[in-house]
Amino acid sequence: MDRHSSAPHGVRDLVVVGGGIIGLAVAWRALEAGLSVTVLDPDPGDGSTHAAAGMLAPATEAEFTEDAALHLHLAGAARWLPFAADLEAAAGRGVGLRESGTLTLGYDETDVALLRRVLALHGRHGVASEELTIAEARRREPLLGQRVRGAAWVPGDHAVDPRAVHAALWRVVAAHSRGAVVPRAAVRLEQQDGRVVGAVDDTGDRHRAGSTVVAAGWASAPLLAEVPGVAVPVRPVKGLTLRLQADPELAPRHVVRGLVQGRPVYVVGREPATEGPWAGHCELVIGATSEENPDDRRAPAGGVFALLRDARALLPAIDEAALVEATPRARPSTPDNLPLVGATHVPGLHLATGHYRNGILLAPLTAEVVVAGLTRSWFAVDVATTDPPAVLAALRATDPRRFPPRAPDPRTPDGAPR
Amino acid sequence: MDRHSSAPHGVRDLVVVGGGIIGLAVAWRALEAGLSVTVLDPDPGDGSTHAAAGMLAPATEAEFTEDAALHLHLAGAARWLPFAADLEAAAGRGVGLRESGTLTLGYDETDVALLRRVLALHGRHGVASEELTIAEARRREPLLGQRVRGAAWVPGDHAVDPRAVHAALWRVVAAHSRGAVVPRAAVRLEQQDGRVVGAVDDTGDRHRAGSTVVAAGWASAPLLAEVPGVAVPVRPVKGLTLRLQADPELAPRHVVRGLVQGRPVYVVGREPATEGPWAGHCELVIGATSEENPDDRRAPAGGVFALLRDARALLPAIDEAALVEATPRARPSTPDNLPLVGATHVPGLHLATGHYRNGILLAPLTAEVVVAGLTRSWFAVDVATTDPPAVLAALRATDPRRFPPRAPDPRTPDGAPR
Repeated sequence: MDRHSSAPHGVRDLVVVGGGIIGLAVAWRALEAGLSVTVLDPDPGDGSTHAAAGMLAPATEAEFTEDAALHLHLAGAARWLPFAADLEAAAGRGVGLRESGTLTLGYDETDVALLRRVLALHGRHGVASEELTIAEARRREPLLGQRVRGAAWVPGDHAVDPRAVHAALWRVVAAHSRGAVVPRAAVRLEQQDGRVVGAVDDTGDRHRAGSTVVAAGWASAPLLAEVPGVAVPVRPVKGLTLRLQADPELAPRHVVRGLVQGRPVYVVGREPATEGPWAGHCELVIGATSEENPDDRRAPAGGVFALLRDARALLPAIDEAALVEATPRARPSTPDNLPLVGATHVPGLHLATGHYRNGILLAPLTAEVVVAGLTRSWFAVDVATTDPPAVLAALRATDPRRFPPRAPDPRTPDGAPR
Repeated sequence: MDRHSSAPHGVRDLVVVGGGIIGLAVAWRALEAGLSVTVLDPDPGDGSTHAAAGMLAPATEAEFTEDAALHLHLAGAARWLPFAADLEAAAGRGVGLRESGTLTLGYDETDVALLRRVLALHGRHGVASEELTIAEARRREPLLGQRVRGAAWVPGDHAVDPRAVHAALWRVVAAHSRGAVVPRAAVRLEQQDGRVVGAVDDTGDRHRAGSTVVAAGWASAPLLAEVPGVAVPVRPVKGLTLRLQADPELAPRHVVRGLVQGRPVYVVGREPATEGPWAGHCELVIGATSEENPDDRRAPAGGVFALLRDARALLPAIDEAALVEATPRARPSTPDNLPLVGATHVPGLHLATGHYRNGILLAPLTAEVVVAGLTRSWFAVDVATTDPPAVLAALRATDPRRFPPRAPDPRTPDGAPR
C-alpha cells in the first residue's frame, strides 16, 4: 500500500479520498510538490467525471453565476492550457483539449433576449464575445438548425475530454514512485487528538497520513458527518449527459450551446477518434439536465427526450448520429454555488468538493489551491488574469470555513462514542 | 459436436443455421420429433430476437398487412398458448407470456379515423375488438395521456418476453441428449450431388446432416447466394426498440399501441422483475422504427427521439422510467411481406426466415410447419382456427418456392468454381 514514502513507515504525507478528476488532479500536483500520496476510490472516475462533457466555459456559463463565481471560473479556465500541456507531457497521451471557441445560440426571440443579457455581462467584465448574424453563425457552423433566431461567438470558451484527462491523471499518479491509487472506499476518517490523521477503508485497513483531502463529490457530506468542527453542506444534484457518435461531416466544429424556449442545452464535439470501434467518428456529448434527486444512476426517459429535442432544435443533424450512452451522475451542489476548496478548521483535513457543474473547469485551479495550502507555498498560486484582486476574492469565497461548523454533540466529544 | 445422434456417426438429422427464436424453436420441435439437431450461431439470440418487444398482435398489426398475412398471424397467435405452456414445462422457467389484451389508441382525429378502419377490418374477419370512449379507456389504463382522442380494446392481442423465450429454448435445446448449440458462424452450405448436406463453419469444420434449415434472418440471403435453385429475397430492414424500467405504478397494465400523427408506436410492459438489479420494476419496451439501412447496429438519435416523443404522447409517465437500452437490429423483410417457411426446390434445404416484424408471433407455427416438412408428418399441423382453409392458404403463401430461383450461373455449375 505504501510502496515509496518520504513519511514515516506506513504513513503517507497525503491521503486523497476520491479518485475523480478533482482528487487525481490534487494527487498529481501533490506528487509534483514532493509529497507521498495514496488515493482511495473503489471505482476511480466513475462519479460525475464520467458524465461530464468537459466544457471550459466561464463566459457562456456566466448567466447562471454571480460575480465571484465568474471570476473564479475565468481563473479556472486560464489554468487549463498549462495544466493540459503539463499533463500530456507527463502522461504521454492526449487529453482532448479543443480550443474551438463556443457558438452560443438563442432559439426563439425570448432566448435571444436572454443571450443578449449574457453578452452585456461579458462586456461589463471584459470577457470577449460578439453577437453574430444568423448568416455569420451559419458560416461558422453550417449544421445550424433553420429556426435558430440569434447567435453569438465566444472565442475563449473551449472544451476538454474529461475521460481522457482522467485516464492521463490516473496514469501519472498510479505510476509515480510516491503515488498509489487503492481501489477501496473510505468509510470514515481516522481522528486522533482533534486531528484528522487518515482514512479507514471498507476492508478495515487504515491509511494514515499527515494530511487528508476529501474530494468525494456529494459523498463528502455523509463521510464527514461524524467529524466535528467542519460543515460540508454539499447535496447531490443529478445531471444527465448523452454520448453520440457522428460522422465528422455531421459533427459541429465548435462547442454549440443555446437556450431553447428557456431551456439551456449544449453539444460538445470531439476530434475524430483514431482507434477503437468508433475510429473515424466524432464523439458528441449533449447535456445536461439538473434534478434534485438521489444519485440513483438512472437515466430518466424524460431527460433523454428533452436533451435530444433541444439539441436537435439547434443541430438537426444530431438525428443521424448514433446514441451510445446516457450517463446520469450526481454532482455536489452547495448552498452558495461555490465549491469548498482548501483547509478546514480541523487540523489535517482539507476539502476539494462542491464544484457542482464546474468540476472539470476548476480541477487545475482546485489542485493548485489545495496543494499550496498543504505545502504552505501560497506564492505558487500565480493567478494569470487581468484582475487579480477579484480572483483572490473569488478564491477566498471558496474557503470551506465560510460555513459554520455544527456544534459538537455534547454526548460524543471529538466524535468518539462514550 | 455430435454427442448423441440417431444418424450415422458424425452426421446429424438436422443442422439449423441461426440460433435466434426461429432457429431454436425449429430445433426444439425437431428434437421432440426424435431428430438429432445441431444449431450453428456465433451469438445465439443476438439478432432481431434481442430487439423484439414480443407483441403477439395479429389484430392490431392488421392495418399493415393483407388478408393472407392476417390469417397467418391469427394462426400464429393461436399456437402461442400451447407453445408457451409446453416450453415452460420443458425448460422449468417462465417465458413472460402476459395475456393482457391490447389497448390501441388514436392520438389525433386523423389517427382515430385510421383506427376505425382497422376495427372495421376486424369486423370483416371476425376478430374481437371494440371501440372505447376515452373515459372507458382511462378506466382500463389510468396512465393515458390527456390529449389522446380515440381508443379501442383488442382482447386477443397479448405479449411475450422474447429474451425469456429464447433463454428457455436455449436451455431445452442445449441440454437435450440429441441437441447441440455450437457457437460458430456458418460461412457456406455443403453441397453434394445437387443436395444440401450440411454447413461449414468459420473454423472450416463441416457439420453434415440429412437436412439443413436456414433460419439466419436477413443473413440467410448472402449465405444462400451461392446455392443454385433457390431464391431468398430477404433484405435487412433496421428496427430500433427502447427498453426502460418503471415503477409498477407507472407501468401500463396492457400492451398499449397507437398512431401518433400517423406514426405507429407501441409500449409493451412486463410483470415486475423478481430478481436482478431491477427487481420490483417493470420492463417497458417501446418500438419500433423501420429503416432501410444496413445492419450497422447503431441506434440513430433521431429514432430514439421519435420513439420517446410518440410513446410519451400516449403514456406521459414514461418520462419517469429509466432508459436502459436502445437496441437496433435488422429484421429480414421480403418483397411480399410474407416469410419463407419450409422446403425448397433443393433437396435437403429448408428455410425459416423473412418474418420481418412477426418473428416472435410466428415462431411456434414456423417451427411446426418446418418440422412437419422435415418429418413428412403434415397431419401434425392441426391449425386451431375458425377458418382452416384461409390458414392453409396462408401457409401455402409462405412456401419458399413462390420466388423463382435464379438461373444457375453457367460458369459455376452447382456453385462450385471451375
